Amino acid sequence: MATSEASVTRIMVAVNESTIKGYPHASISSKGAFEWTLQKIVMSNTSGFKLLFLHVQVPDEDGFDDMDSIYASPEDFKSLKSRDRARGLRLLEFFVTRCHEIGVACEAWIKKGDPKEVICHEVRRIQPDLLVLGSRGLGPFQRVFVGTVSEFCVKHAECPVVTIKRRSDETPQDPVDD
Amino acid sequence: MATSEASVTRIMVAVNESTIKGYPHASISSKGAFEWTLQKIVMSNTSGFKLLFLHVQVPDEDGFDDMDSIYASPEDFKSLKSRDRARGLRLLEFFVTRCHEIGVACEAWIKKGDPKEVICHEVRRIQPDLLVLGSRGLGPFQRVFVGTVSEFCVKHAECPVVTIKRRSDETPQDPVDD
Repeated sequence: MATSEASVTRIMVAVNESTIKGYPHASISSKGAFEWTLQKIVMSNTSGFKLLFLHVQVPDEDGFDDMDSIYASPEDFKSLKSRDRARGLRLLEFFVTRCHEIGVACEAWIKKGDPKEVICHEVRRIQPDLLVLGSRGLGPFQRVFVGTVSEFCVKHAECPVVTIKRRSDETPQDPVDD
Repeated sequence: MATSEASVTRIMVAVNESTIKGYPHASISSKGAFEWTLQKIVMSNTSGFKLLFLHVQVPDEDGFDDMDSIYASPEDFKSLKSRDRARGLRLLEFFVTRCHEIGVACEAWIKKGDPKEVICHEVRRIQPDLLVLGSRGLGPFQRVFVGTVSEFCVKHAECPVVTIKRRSDETPQDPVDD
């Protein structure tokens, strides 16, 4: 049964790369949030939903990733920018391909900035029906050091937000791995 | 298409009575959370979901509701208890009837106690896939006085939680009305 655009539920899923494995691998918590959305919400009603994948790239302030690079001209920075973009696109490709396989409409895009601020800004702009965020489910002690994107968005995003914590059997030995 | 029990998504919706109108009227935020669940999540996939309605009755510590009552024997307290229960059941009837009309499976029950503690306890016991809570969407100033069931549950409930704030056009003049 075809579903008219007006009655399609638009779910924004914020996705990021694995902290340890890096691009193009999706973080465990991003994949968890995505799979939860498919298994528990979308199910067989593939025409009832549209998934909106937002990937926020954090500007690389300490330059750690680029220690071996030499920047001699503005062109070098441009190539860096396009390399970052290419990596982000490969990350999004994972989610878009999966949606295509199961027949769920989707869109995906990349933004740069502070993830929590950008996510809330994009929610205001796009006005999804629901924002789904993966979370490492860290305790209060670890949370101080790794930031709290989901906590911020639950408070400030102007749409309903659901946070999907990792199951304990998905948690890697190093809790910072994501 | 029949959906097997294992693939049914169980959504717990915590519901309460209107602060101003009292029983059997559901609060605006409860109705909002329920309607959001139907319109944005369940949609036409009525066989894919089961709704679990929990109503937590707060023990009446100040006795305001019963100022004109006289309690002369233990029997009087029993009748009070059964009256409370009857009011709670009429509240749940609203939600169960609506589910019946649209063909969504549901269950409903009443518990007594501190809503935030009881909701988290029932989540541990029932293990729903999602907990949906209505919220008055009050600012930080008002929040201090009226409690923060949804904030507590977002942090402590052992399942994904989504809070549905009232739309501004649903907010009555008295922000405490619910």
